[in-house]
Amino acid sequence: MSKLKSIAELQALLSLAIEKTSFQEEPAELYQPISYVLNLGGKRLRPALVLMATDIYGVDVEKALPQAIGMELFHNFTLMHDDIMDDAPLRRGKTTVHEKWDSNIAILSGDALFVKAYQSIVKADAKYLAALMDLFNQTALEVCEGQQYDMNFETQDAVSMSAYLKMIKYKTAVLLACALQSGALIADASEEDQKHLYDFGIHIGLAFQLMDDILDVYGDQAEVGKQVAGDVLCNKKTCLYIKAYEGANEEQLKVLDYYFAHQDFDAQEKISEVMKVYAELDVRLACRNMMDEHYNSAINHLNSVSVSDDRKLVLVQFTELLMERVN
Amino acid sequence: MSKLKSIAELQALLSLAIEKTSFQEEPAELYQPISYVLNLGGKRLRPALVLMATDIYGVDVEKALPQAIGMELFHNFTLMHDDIMDDAPLRRGKTTVHEKWDSNIAILSGDALFVKAYQSIVKADAKYLAALMDLFNQTALEVCEGQQYDMNFETQDAVSMSAYLKMIKYKTAVLLACALQSGALIADASEEDQKHLYDFGIHIGLAFQLMDDILDVYGDQAEVGKQVAGDVLCNKKTCLYIKAYEGANEEQLKVLDYYFAHQDFDAQEKISEVMKVYAELDVRLACRNMMDEHYNSAINHLNSVSVSDDRKLVLVQFTELLMERVN
Repeated sequence: MSKLKSIAELQALLSLAIEKTSFQEEPAELYQPISYVLNLGGKRLRPALVLMATDIYGVDVEKALPQAIGMELFHNFTLMHDDIMDDAPLRRGKTTVHEKWDSNIAILSGDALFVKAYQSIVKADAKYLAALMDLFNQTALEVCEGQQYDMNFETQDAVSMSAYLKMIKYKTAVLLACALQSGALIADASEEDQKHLYDFGIHIGLAFQLMDDILDVYGDQAEVGKQVAGDVLCNKKTCLYIKAYEGANEEQLKVLDYYFAHQDFDAQEKISEVMKVYAELDVRLACRNMMDEHYNSAINHLNSVSVSDDRKLVLVQFTELLMERVN
Repeated sequence: MSKLKSIAELQALLSLAIEKTSFQEEPAELYQPISYVLNLGGKRLRPALVLMATDIYGVDVEKALPQAIGMELFHNFTLMHDDIMDDAPLRRGKTTVHEKWDSNIAILSGDALFVKAYQSIVKADAKYLAALMDLFNQTALEVCEGQQYDMNFETQDAVSMSAYLKMIKYKTAVLLACALQSGALIADASEEDQKHLYDFGIHIGLAFQLMDDILDVYGDQAEVGKQVAGDVLCNKKTCLYIKAYEGANEEQLKVLDYYFAHQDFDAQEKISEVMKVYAELDVRLACRNMMDEHYNSAINHLNSVSVSDDRKLVLVQFTELLMERVN
């Protein structure tokens, strides 16, 4: 069996493959934004997951390369459209497509990129095609649903924790899960293994998102490179907020309602008042416990995959890499 | 062999099937616009073409029903996104999705509808799947390219006839062609037959679009239900305009440039001055000749399909129905 490839090796392989994927087609207005968004970089984690899930079975990762690239193309399509909907000026520190060109270009280039994702994913042996398509279609639909739930939450008063978990599962976790299962599928893994890898992806995705929520308020911001408590400032309903809202007494509820109703507060005042409520209710620990639960579930599913531990090493490393910011 | 189904029978069958396709899913903000746009009506011509192309081979049209519905879902997805890009207030006399809800809803519902189209199209025997996907992906990409060319033409000074024909081929004709070939593919038609039906679709699509251009200026407007010379008023570069531009002398060019540079003219003055140039250059006849050429090519391809003439009757009727406005 071939030596297991490291994450860095897989990322290098993917960068090369994505560079080689030519989008020098006509009309330029349609394809230039695609090249642009793909060259903004990013860690290529989703396609790396496809290849890892193939590699653990000792199957040549080249076999799953088109599906890996398909996941990356799809992910970038969602970024293009999400950035329009979120009115985001920047993506990975660079101007977003709808700002650099315009919204129409971002809509249509996104659509074309979505088709390109399908074109890449269907480059598989006929025997895998139906299962790959069903998995990907279901995932793509859930990603749309997740984005819609996320937009709905902005104007919703109360968001339940279960609704929140469903949203982050759909918006983030299912694509990681789909990537892993696709790689396993192409490696002819058993259905049980495919399911365990899918669930590993779901729980790792959830744990990662919960960690992201916690770090927004409690992380070392210099390291994270973000505005301190940016989620609080823009009234985003995160795990911390929802936990606080669930447990708040009348007075604490008043504070949350007051500060999350508007944006025009002194930033330091808002953050410190909200963090006071968070501290009183110990929501950091509650969310940390939820995160740990999903992390442990992920590891359990990975442990249940029927390959030797040394073949799982790269997935363990990946998990550590993803979660290292809180460890 | 079963009796050939009439267009009306196929349309009734499709209306029922599309009604039965439930979009009562959550979140409602994502799926209600899909139900809305599908219930605006329309003649269901694209899915009918899929079924016709299956029916001519005596194969049960039920076999191709998911692919037929997929074509209709895809078509409606393109309408949703095109209407945003074209800033269109109305579609089939009703408020467009981005006007009734908002642009974000129209983008995301459109994306979800696109996935629904794929979900329907992949409901085929495994042996057809790769060919169906390749054909559909290529078509979807060309439809995006066609829309981009169309948008480019708005700000382009001169548009060549070949560029124009490519645009209308991609924007309109390829989906008719794809629908026909998909139906034939599922009926196990030979590759030659599939190609002839595809080309029949291309040329019928081109002839139809050229007819539409001619009727905008020279049609019985009461019957067509459109603004007289609406294309001229909004400076649209149609076949008539391009022919005129190609053949114009210096003075005629001045008239065209003058009236197509702005929209703030007296409508009657603009129409009559532009139509004078069109008449001098006899562009109506030139475009009519182009249309006839494509119509004849379509019929030639249909004649080359290896089924008996009586099985082709419904496609002949379809062609007549489509083109009856100028006959």
